[in-house]
Amino acid sequence: MEVRPVRWEGEALVLIDQTQLPHRLVEIRYRDWREVAEAIRRMVVRGAPAIGAAAACGLTLAAEAVEAADMSLFRQRWLEAAEAFARTRPTAVNLFWAIERMKAVVAACDSPHEARRRLREESEAILREDVEANRAIGRYGQELVPDGARILTHCNAGALATVGYGTALGVIRAAVEAGKRVHVYADETRPRLQGMQLTAWELVQEGIPVTVITDNMAGMLMRRGEIDLVVVGADRIAANGDVANKVGTYSVAVLARWHGIPFYVAAPTSTVDLSAADGSAIPIEERSSEEVTHIGGVRIAPEGVHVINPAFDVTPADLVTAIITERGVARSPYTQSLSQMVLASTGEAR
Amino acid sequence: MEVRPVRWEGEALVLIDQTQLPHRLVEIRYRDWREVAEAIRRMVVRGAPAIGAAAACGLTLAAEAVEAADMSLFRQRWLEAAEAFARTRPTAVNLFWAIERMKAVVAACDSPHEARRRLREESEAILREDVEANRAIGRYGQELVPDGARILTHCNAGALATVGYGTALGVIRAAVEAGKRVHVYADETRPRLQGMQLTAWELVQEGIPVTVITDNMAGMLMRRGEIDLVVVGADRIAANGDVANKVGTYSVAVLARWHGIPFYVAAPTSTVDLSAADGSAIPIEERSSEEVTHIGGVRIAPEGVHVINPAFDVTPADLVTAIITERGVARSPYTQSLSQMVLASTGEAR
Repeated sequence: MEVRPVRWEGEALVLIDQTQLPHRLVEIRYRDWREVAEAIRRMVVRGAPAIGAAAACGLTLAAEAVEAADMSLFRQRWLEAAEAFARTRPTAVNLFWAIERMKAVVAACDSPHEARRRLREESEAILREDVEANRAIGRYGQELVPDGARILTHCNAGALATVGYGTALGVIRAAVEAGKRVHVYADETRPRLQGMQLTAWELVQEGIPVTVITDNMAGMLMRRGEIDLVVVGADRIAANGDVANKVGTYSVAVLARWHGIPFYVAAPTSTVDLSAADGSAIPIEERSSEEVTHIGGVRIAPEGVHVINPAFDVTPADLVTAIITERGVARSPYTQSLSQMVLASTGEAR
Repeated sequence: MEVRPVRWEGEALVLIDQTQLPHRLVEIRYRDWREVAEAIRRMVVRGAPAIGAAAACGLTLAAEAVEAADMSLFRQRWLEAAEAFARTRPTAVNLFWAIERMKAVVAACDSPHEARRRLREESEAILREDVEANRAIGRYGQELVPDGARILTHCNAGALATVGYGTALGVIRAAVEAGKRVHVYADETRPRLQGMQLTAWELVQEGIPVTVITDNMAGMLMRRGEIDLVVVGADRIAANGDVANKVGTYSVAVLARWHGIPFYVAAPTSTVDLSAADGSAIPIEERSSEEVTHIGGVRIAPEGVHVINPAFDVTPADLVTAIITERGVARSPYTQSLSQMVLASTGEAR
């Protein structure tokens, strides 16, 4: 079974409800763009590329819902939807990349009718290109994976985080497809347990060997010599190669460097934000404290205790061995290597 | 309210049931030593010094239960109980230290009657000395805490992990008693959440400011400059200063060193095992996989996934800034400083 967390089915957008995994595989059909925005906020769909793709589809539904014969009125009302999507999640830059791409389509259209048709085509292109990009990331990335590698990953940068195939897990899938034996260690990734509930689920489906560890076991495994490389995804990569990704990524990167283990980031060029000079320019989403104090709706924390819940952290570029994109493997100095890949990608798409 | 997780009440041993915290404060009265051994295994009582104290009390109950008029038969039957306690938890050396101390009492007695009386006295001495040791650890340790310090701790090395006052939290309590302002960050400490459910609970009771973080947030806070020092307890310290403590301690120690933050270990000399030359000689307990795959009895992991659950890891001595004992602050080379403190302590106790 190929996992497709974001897909069109006729007129409806279909999302896998990732809040119900690994216990139930439930798909939800959407016709109302407001519900899609809410699904992004609630993390029914999550992962930077999947968020971008879902927003593109949501903006297509929004265009179909806007009642306006006049293009100027259409634009005005549709832009309100675009703004609503922009407010859902602040860190994943693919969201803003997708919104900008959809805005450019609307700007080039002369009628609401044309806009509706071309937005749908653009959303379909975004879905298609994302899977293609992930397969290219896999091809480049798998060359960095030795046969027999024991690979640590954090959070979920799999098929579920994208339109399909995955970024970090795409590298692992491609290594397996190339005939390499691998063993994956998945950090469980508190507070929302994406490593345990999504990454492990995906890999179990495909028969790729996986061991789930609590986040605090990674250092011990590295010291014992049981990790050969780390590969993670990214929510936003600054021009200098600083990487915002799920909270805990930074700790893993420090531990990897301490133990001399390569630390790779796998992400499409749509995750690179050249307008952010470095990681300090990346907004970090603070999510509800209940994600920390509760698990599965059950309170685990004592009453009256204070918690924090930054969803992401920033790993400085100097801890990143390489960034694997669909354009190749970028290495330091990233300011140069990344901008070349992004510009090549933008040039071809337009 | 002073927290006393292990205490005598008349003939009965009273333990706080730490598996029910922070939701309910329940005490359980024990008269049957086998139930005490089971309570240690189930982690009704946990924390190296508390385990040792509970075993000493359990062996007192065992002596009272052994029906034997003859000293040789008494010894034989009582030693079976001692062996049962020795099988409960392998890593915390205070367990074996307490058993040895109780064995020495029995070896010196001429009658079961005398042994029963003197074992009870010895258990009372162990309880009393543990609190005294922790207060001394606090006095020495608080000198290392600057006013306004933001302190990270891992797991629970508090009153609940000891007979009272705590080791790592004893240092924090003593700093507060000395008039210093502190803010504690408590790693939640998966899989069993002792940081969130025990450390945070203890500190909230006393009005000491505490913020709970998921284990994977520690690195990010250090990078932001929000942690001034780390203090943790220990389950066993080797002669060279290698420290076995709750899994995740090693990662915190690496992160602290990376960021130039002092990493202190607070433990009584009864936690030092001079017979273990270094950390490789310390047995690491592997606990049930259900501690990882379930929280509060609810399965969080996908079916069919493999997990590991080593309860402890080893932090090499070169990452430990100092070890705070009731005899003073030991610094590198630990082989010298620790053995002096242990021998001074043993000489005085006997």
